[in-house]
Parts: sequence; C-alpha cells; structure tokens
Amino acid sequence: MTVPRGLSCRDSAQAPKAEYADATIRVRYAETDQMGVVYHGNYFVWFEVGRVEYCRQAGVDYKRMESEDDSFIVVVEASCRYRRPARYDDLLTVRTRLTESRRRTIRFAYEIFRQDSGEQLATGETLHVICDRLGQPKSLPEKYRPYFRAMPPEASGDTTKATKR
Amino acid sequence: MTVPRGLSCRDSAQAPKAEYADATIRVRYAETDQMGVVYHGNYFVWFEVGRVEYCRQAGVDYKRMESEDDSFIVVVEASCRYRRPARYDDLLTVRTRLTESRRRTIRFAYEIFRQDSGEQLATGETLHVICDRLGQPKSLPEKYRPYFRAMPPEASGDTTKATKR
Amino acid sequence: MTVPRGLSCRDSAQAPKAEYADATIRVRYAETDQMGVVYHGNYFVWFEVGRVEYCRQAGVDYKRMESEDDSFIVVVEASCRYRRPARYDDLLTVRTRLTESRRRTIRFAYEIFRQDSGEQLATGETLHVICDRLGQPKSLPEKYRPYFRAMPPEASGDTTKATKR
Amino acid sequence: MTVPRGLSCRDSAQAPKAEYADATIRVRYAETDQMGVVYHGNYFVWFEVGRVEYCRQAGVDYKRMESEDDSFIVVVEASCRYRRPARYDDLLTVRTRLTESRRRTIRFAYEIFRQDSGEQLATGETLHVICDRLGQPKSLPEKYRPYFRAMPPEASGDTTKATKR
Repeated sequence: MTVPRGLSCRDSAQAPKAEYADATIRVRYAETDQMGVVYHGNYFVWFEVGRVEYCRQAGVDYKRMESEDDSFIVVVEASCRYRRPARYDDLLTVRTRLTESRRRTIRFAYEIFRQDSGEQLATGETLHVICDRLGQPKSLPEKYRPYFRAMPPEASGDTTKATKR
Repeated sequence: MTVPRGLSCRDSAQAPKAEYADATIRVRYAETDQMGVVYHGNYFVWFEVGRVEYCRQAGVDYKRMESEDDSFIVVVEASCRYRRPARYDDLLTVRTRLTESRRRTIRFAYEIFRQDSGEQLATGETLHVICDRLGQPKSLPEKYRPYFRAMPPEASGDTTKATKR
Repeated sequence: MTVPRGLSCRDSAQAPKAEYADATIRVRYAETDQMGVVYHGNYFVWFEVGRVEYCRQAGVDYKRMESEDDSFIVVVEASCRYRRPARYDDLLTVRTRLTESRRRTIRFAYEIFRQDSGEQLATGETLHVICDRLGQPKSLPEKYRPYFRAMPPEASGDTTKATKR
Repeated sequence: MTVPRGLSCRDSAQAPKAEYADATIRVRYAETDQMGVVYHGNYFVWFEVGRVEYCRQAGVDYKRMESEDDSFIVVVEASCRYRRPARYDDLLTVRTRLTESRRRTIRFAYEIFRQDSGEQLATGETLHVICDRLGQPKSLPEKYRPYFRAMPPEASGDTTKATKR
C-alpha cells in the first residue's frame, strides 16, 4: 500500500513503529486546587498534550490536519482513574497509546506517572470521532490511515513493569 | 434516627427530598477552544459546580465539611460522554444525582442540557472517596450520612422527558 | 441620530443608560490553587464575564457581533490589582464600566467585590481593539456605536461608596 | 556576606548570575479559544511558569519556600500587553527578569516570544508581596535575599536584538 504524501504527513517509511509516545509535563501552580494537589479536570488537558505528542511522533501534524484536511479529532468519551495525587512542580510523563482505530473513530489510552519515582498516578481513555469543521462525522482521510494504526494492548508488552522503574 | 446537628448541616427535617439538583451555567468565552465549541475538559469543572449545588441543596456546606470536619470528597474516577457541543454564551443546566452512597465512597451522575432547547449535551459520572486533609481515606462522618442518601436511578422518575430529547 | 437596527442590536430606545453592569460569580473549586484562594489568572476570566454582561445589558449580542458582523473585541492590554483574596464558594459581583470608546478601541474598567460583605477584592482594566476574523484592526461598525458610549469615570458617581454597602 | 544555607537554597556560590531565565511553553489546545488564538488569560499562567523557572535557575526551590519557610510569593498586581497572537502548538519562550526587590515586595518582568521567528508576542509584569500561610505580609527570609537580587533593566543588555523584533 502506498501512502499519498501530503504536507501534513511524514513519509510512510517513518510511520509509527513505537507502541507509545511520551510527553513531559511540569505541574503548574495554576493546576493545583485548595486541596493542595492537582485539580482532577486538568488530567484531561494532559491527556490532550499526550495525544498531540503521539500524533507528532507518528508523523502527523495535527494543526495541518485541521486546517488543510478539514479533519478534527473530536472527543466523544473521556474517562480517568486517579490513583495518587500529582503535586505542584512534579515532573510527569504522559504515556499515550492508540488502542483502537476504525474508519471514523480512534481510541487512545493514557498513563500518567511521576518521573522521579515511576509511580503511576492516573490512567485514562478517550474515544474520538473524526469530524469536519462543522462537526459532521467523516472518515479519516486515506493519507492519515497508516499513521493511525492501533497497537493492541496485548502486543504492547508489560507496561506495568515499564512504569515501575 | 436523629441527626446530630452541626454547623455544616441543616436540620434533618430539611434533608434532601429532591432526586436531583440543578445548577445553571453560562458558557464563558474562556471555556471555548479553536474548534469553536467548549473544550471537553471543562465539563468536569461543570460537574463539580453541579456537585457543589447538590450538596448545598441537600443542606451540606461543603466548605465547612472540609475546614471543620476534615472531610474531603476526593475524585477517584471521572467520565463523560459528549453528545452535542456546548457553545459560547449558551445557558446550560447541570443536573446532578447522588446514585450511590457507601461508608467511604459516593457516586454522582450528571446530565448537561441546553436550557432553551432542552437538548442533552453530555452525561457523566464521578466516583469519590472521603479523605482527610492528608489524603487518607476515612468514613463519611455520621452527621453527614442523612444528607448523602443515594437516590437509585429507577426511583428517580422519567428524566428523559424533562430534558426534551 | 437614528440607530440602524440589526439582528445583533436592540432598539436604540433601549441603548444603555446604566453606568455599569453587574454580573454574579460563584467561585468554583477549580478556580482555587494550593494557597487556598483563587488563582490570580482567573480574575481575567471573570472580567470577561463582566464584559459580556455589560454588552448584553447594553443591548449588544456579542456572539452575533462576531458571527454576523465579523467584529471581534480583541484584548490588547489587561491589568489587575488584587486587594483581598477571593475564596471557594464566595458569591462575587463583577462590576463593569465602559470608560473609553474610540473608533477602533474601547476600554473597560472592573471592580470585583464580595456580595455578603461588600468588600472590594480587586480592580482591573482591559483595552481592546476591534478586529475582523483574521485579526486585522477595523472600525467598530456604525450600528454598534450607540451601544458603546463610554461613561466617563467622573460622571459615574462615587463608586467607592457603592461597593461598601 | 555569607549566605545561610538552607534546604531550599543552593550554595551562595551558585547565586544567580544570569539576568533572566527562559522557560519553554508548547501551546496547548485547551489554551486556545474560539477566536482561533490563545485566550488572553493564559498568558498569566505562562508568566507564572516563567517565574517558577527563574526561581529554579536562581537556586530557589519555591515549593520548599512555601512548605518549609512559610513564605508565599503572592501576586498583588499583574499586567500584560498583547502584541501578536500565540497559536495552538506554537513553541514559545517566556523570558523572566527580576526587576525590583525590596524587603517585602519583588517585581518580575516577562517577555514572550515565538521560538521559530523570534517575534515578540507579549510583555508583562507582576508585583508580589511575601506573605505567610495566612496571607499576612512578612519580610523575605534572610536566606533568600541573595537569590532575589534584582537586575536593573538598563544593566540587562540589549534584549531587543535577542527577540528579533
């Protein structure tokens, strides 16, 4: 299968081989609340940072995917399980996997852990529908397909071990 | 059963009879993103507004519950399903129900709809553990029990009609 | 002077007579930080809530001003002085005045006070340029002029007294 | 002058020599609004990221300054001038200078520019009072003095060139 080259995709030879992408987050003061820990709603912002990083490492420029190919990755479901609190100034990793990829929907899974201790703080998932500028569902353009190939969880190794460094 | 009166509870005679509490939200410009709709992470902030309103209407002053009774309602799970986008300046209702109440955990369900059309925009759920200031799980203090009695979904009437789906 | 009627303006007979507009804010948990008070950046979001309310009371539907008249009120300067902290669940008033109005720029002044005590918490100012969708400065469309007539501070009475109720 | 060593300061020999500290920001989707650019309130969050980075590079662990020395750097004034919009996925630099340092107050100045073009997007300032946990003003503890020595603007070189305006 050949991959149509476009301004917003890298060469298919560079299509994602990695099973996940890692993004680093330094917790901001603004992200804490009066409980002294990070406000829970902010984890969804971090998931988005992870998702963007996943796309970038997979060779997709999401900015152009929106502006040039009129394809928006719209969130239709989001969930998070909070295990341990994140705190101001913590250095975190958001690890993002693409766990499902269909004609019109894609699913990402996330894991957030503290970089110093390796402790897992939270896990989550988002389900997305590809939409045009007006919010109408559409198929993911052909040229992006190779970049959004899901990695089934079972094939992606023992992630538990990976995060308990 | 008598309810110990406290500064942070209203008289037991005023314990919650309503099956849900409604809070009104006017969508802020700051809450939109470049897709032209509300950023999905903000729904969790609105759920929290709904939860606080539920507590208030149930007779619980959550502010005092934290400061005087060292009891924090910590989020351990949160999820949301997005059905239709909310837009800048929309007037919304967050309808909150307490769907489960145990010694150490409580669960809320949310429904967000547009006030003019009655369209349902999103539904969600949060699971909470009662913790002390240091984040250690604890039982919900006795005096708050009557105010956190769950209303099972089946007993809560036909809400579908109310939201005009 | 006649006012061209438009979908996004009310009749000129209803043009703003009031010297300010008040909006009510209930402080959200999400808006606090680990200092136990509201994070300072959120006051600018509240100023925006006040500004939108000012427009609404003046008869301008800002949503339509953007979508139908391609006129955006873009912030070019913003400042805030913080006097006393706002806290979770406080009920606040944002009082907004239009203090300057020129062909291409308008200036708003804000005052935030606690509704129960009348204490002033913060004051601020924003300067705006009218821009089109692409961010190019333009003149405020004629039909909006009557709705953006500034009220000079000296004419607007002793506001200090007003807030120390 | 000897510097009392503390857990939250580095050795005085490492006291700040640099005239400014740079922090990198990747613009998040959540930070944009429906105008298609970054919401203006978020610049104050970025200023805070810059301020924290300034402290870190100066040898001050602000987290410990709060928790161990009961000294909070509270914002009492904040202002920003917006020159060009920041956009989603832009890579930015927040350049932070300490421009004034007194017994109880310190002042920071900020400059935000795009890393690829060097274009300056915004400038700003914040004034702070040192407070204890209860919000009462206090003097900056002696041991932190050497780390908060202001660099007068005139002594800080030609920054204009650096930002390629």
